[in-house]
Amino acid sequence: MQFTAKDIAFMLNGTVEGDPLAAVSQLAKIEEAQQGSLSFLANPKYEQYLYTTDASIVIINKSQQLTGPVKASLIRVENAYNAFTLLLEQYNTLKLNKKGIEQPSFIHTSAQIGQDAYIGAFAYISQNVKLGANCKVYPNCYIADNVTLGDNVTLFPGVTVYFDCVIGNNVIIHSGSVIGSDGFGFAPKPDGTYNKIPQIGNVIIEDDVEIGSNTTVDRATMGSTIIHKGTKLDNLVQIAHNVEIGENTVIAAQTGIAGSTKLEANVMLGGQVGIVGHISIAKGTQVQAQSGVSRPIKQEGLKWGGSPALLYGDNMRSNVVVSRLPELEKRVLELEKIITELKNK
Amino acid sequence: MQFTAKDIAFMLNGTVEGDPLAAVSQLAKIEEAQQGSLSFLANPKYEQYLYTTDASIVIINKSQQLTGPVKASLIRVENAYNAFTLLLEQYNTLKLNKKGIEQPSFIHTSAQIGQDAYIGAFAYISQNVKLGANCKVYPNCYIADNVTLGDNVTLFPGVTVYFDCVIGNNVIIHSGSVIGSDGFGFAPKPDGTYNKIPQIGNVIIEDDVEIGSNTTVDRATMGSTIIHKGTKLDNLVQIAHNVEIGENTVIAAQTGIAGSTKLEANVMLGGQVGIVGHISIAKGTQVQAQSGVSRPIKQEGLKWGGSPALLYGDNMRSNVVVSRLPELEKRVLELEKIITELKNK
Amino acid sequence: MQFTAKDIAFMLNGTVEGDPLAAVSQLAKIEEAQQGSLSFLANPKYEQYLYTTDASIVIINKSQQLTGPVKASLIRVENAYNAFTLLLEQYNTLKLNKKGIEQPSFIHTSAQIGQDAYIGAFAYISQNVKLGANCKVYPNCYIADNVTLGDNVTLFPGVTVYFDCVIGNNVIIHSGSVIGSDGFGFAPKPDGTYNKIPQIGNVIIEDDVEIGSNTTVDRATMGSTIIHKGTKLDNLVQIAHNVEIGENTVIAAQTGIAGSTKLEANVMLGGQVGIVGHISIAKGTQVQAQSGVSRPIKQEGLKWGGSPALLYGDNMRSNVVVSRLPELEKRVLELEKIITELKNK
Repeated sequence: MQFTAKDIAFMLNGTVEGDPLAAVSQLAKIEEAQQGSLSFLANPKYEQYLYTTDASIVIINKSQQLTGPVKASLIRVENAYNAFTLLLEQYNTLKLNKKGIEQPSFIHTSAQIGQDAYIGAFAYISQNVKLGANCKVYPNCYIADNVTLGDNVTLFPGVTVYFDCVIGNNVIIHSGSVIGSDGFGFAPKPDGTYNKIPQIGNVIIEDDVEIGSNTTVDRATMGSTIIHKGTKLDNLVQIAHNVEIGENTVIAAQTGIAGSTKLEANVMLGGQVGIVGHISIAKGTQVQAQSGVSRPIKQEGLKWGGSPALLYGDNMRSNVVVSRLPELEKRVLELEKIITELKNK
Repeated sequence: MQFTAKDIAFMLNGTVEGDPLAAVSQLAKIEEAQQGSLSFLANPKYEQYLYTTDASIVIINKSQQLTGPVKASLIRVENAYNAFTLLLEQYNTLKLNKKGIEQPSFIHTSAQIGQDAYIGAFAYISQNVKLGANCKVYPNCYIADNVTLGDNVTLFPGVTVYFDCVIGNNVIIHSGSVIGSDGFGFAPKPDGTYNKIPQIGNVIIEDDVEIGSNTTVDRATMGSTIIHKGTKLDNLVQIAHNVEIGENTVIAAQTGIAGSTKLEANVMLGGQVGIVGHISIAKGTQVQAQSGVSRPIKQEGLKWGGSPALLYGDNMRSNVVVSRLPELEKRVLELEKIITELKNK
Repeated sequence: MQFTAKDIAFMLNGTVEGDPLAAVSQLAKIEEAQQGSLSFLANPKYEQYLYTTDASIVIINKSQQLTGPVKASLIRVENAYNAFTLLLEQYNTLKLNKKGIEQPSFIHTSAQIGQDAYIGAFAYISQNVKLGANCKVYPNCYIADNVTLGDNVTLFPGVTVYFDCVIGNNVIIHSGSVIGSDGFGFAPKPDGTYNKIPQIGNVIIEDDVEIGSNTTVDRATMGSTIIHKGTKLDNLVQIAHNVEIGENTVIAAQTGIAGSTKLEANVMLGGQVGIVGHISIAKGTQVQAQSGVSRPIKQEGLKWGGSPALLYGDNMRSNVVVSRLPELEKRVLELEKIITELKNK
């Protein structure tokens, strides 16, 4: 796919300076761009690259002053950053523009597939599944009995959704993630073995949620594990049974949340964080990477760090002292010696 | 699926109080139940909900006294908790009651499939594989050459079992888990590159083991990585090559055990625990979430916490002091000042 | 597959002592070997097992002196360890000797498949994909549009490679790993919701890289996430968008590297390590398991530990004092009491 400066200026309602037939086939950062690339300049910090870039076309703000000769063709628009983001989105839409039902795939006769669906080869759509409009189910996905997907849902290759789960609109789930596997529930018996506690609940994923690759979200024992609207989970995240995650929460990779814990809205968790089961985390809480939260957080909007987690500043200060603990111990020893001398005087 | 109070009372050998034709189609906790739900009351702590629940039917103990009017139909049984658990299990069995061989699937002519199997579409059963009776191999599973499965094994969608592995009876493995991938073994060469050490052993998973989703169990370099009878692994757990895990051990999500380490029976590991390679962990050891165990644990039945792990109580006490380290450092500084003054007197 | 001592001696250019028709069908460690096994003795520490092993054949060094009767047939070679490693490799090659294109698989008409390929059933090869010679794509793998694989690449069952990614020669990727899923990039909006930042870059994996199972490597926002030549990643590792990992680096299981961080060559990371985004890690750096690196490491070849990471020795010393912090606090309290007494004198 090749586009000329003229084409792109037309799309963006901009004006061309330089060769209107300059052609590009990819998008790149201005400092890394090679010939045939389209780039943009929005941040004045990067202006120097405008005069040295190998990009064939650069989108710039209408108001941008030039202080030297520019090799690339320029497209002037109201807001270069927004214009470029628009192109990124259109590029992505083109790249992921799959349509139709490939064979062999398995679609149960009782399943309902909305309009303009993509069902990849080797995808499995089971009994009573309902897919809204514009869903994309890539190859090797498995959607079990009675699962419902809203409109514009994308399941990348190899996603598994267990029975009875409910997925809203505009949800994106990346490869290898598993939604609705059994919660980890076993009742110890007197002889040391365990009875499995049946996990008969489901998972509800609301609109506009995105889930990374190889993440696991367990079904509830009874009731639902819930991921509310607009929340984003990174890769390799573990969400245990009966957890509830509030709206617009962001959870980085390899973080785990134990059973029945409830996060309120707008929480931000760094990577490799652990949160114990059966607690509540207040709205707007932020937790630093690798922290461990073992007690409820009731006050909203605070920042935490460490394992076990302390308030961010307290943890920072404790960490500093930890790093000089051997020295501190020596100082105490020294004091003890002096005191003994003083006492013996 | 709808059941009446009369039907359920018959199944549970109980007696109905109220409308014998009250009908339910789902199971729910008494405090969350909606109309059309079946619930139960066993714990006296929840008795209040008996008088307010929207459940259509509630199972209660024969001995339960009523202290107010109840809307729901009641079923009285000897032990309400056990009766409800029985229903949960039957519900689950119904939900997972797949049978037959779906097409297209790949079953090598040399493979032996036991009676009453379920082989989902896009499942792959390779050469010389042996499946016992009542096995369920869901879609997109891969079972490599010479793998043996016992009776009543369930592999949920997308499980991979590498060649030569052996899986016992009543084993459940959830989606995306990988059994028998190569151990992480590389020998450094003088030029800084690495030679791969061939990993030719296998994995043995004994009876009654359950493994969560996206967990990885590596094959042994030589010999076997072994998961003994009755052990339960959660999601995203890493078991390295030549590890041996004792009977009835429970390992929570995102925990990792490095190569050649041996856990004795009845160990309990919290989530995100790490255990180094080449050590032994004594029977009945318990390790708190996010701990790191870097030395052998020889004494049975102790509880550990922290990274590096200390005895549970010691770690708790150290954590408390860590949280007030900045203050402790100030106290030492104060002492030093006073001492200097005293000495200079 | 059975081999006699005579066969093996011929392959290894060795000489047989004992029964040349002794037959073996598997390889085992000398201390664990059963009848029908081939083993080896290289390390003098294990010599005792030579006289007690049940192995049918043992490979030993030409120079090995015998101090007692040996039951097994012996094969004498120049270097027993090297000879055995050679057999391990040949055994592995035999085990993984898949060839041909199985049906049903999905190969787009525009895809180019090199000679001697293995394409398993239910594998999906999309538009404009190019596979070099001797590639093995196991069942349930998905290779998206425009992906390039070099020669001798093995993708075990269930690997997903997103569009535009580039994989070099001799790369091995184990089951369930995901290459090229979207980086975790979201721009907050004033109302608390998030805009997805399109991730249009790719992943480049150079020659001789091995990646374990269920590992995730995210595509770059723009440009490339790069894993340089000879690097080895274990299972369940997270590599975020725009990360660059130097040559011959070794990363153990469950470690995560956040966005845009750059590791130079010959780095070694233990398991469950976390490294924050946007920093550089110097050549030859070693980081202990469970550590957290939050600042750039500029000096080459140092060893680090702890979270936040300190120099290895400093961290060890701090850990020791942490374990006796409650006692240290008591000592300070004791000093304060004595000082108060002294001052009041």
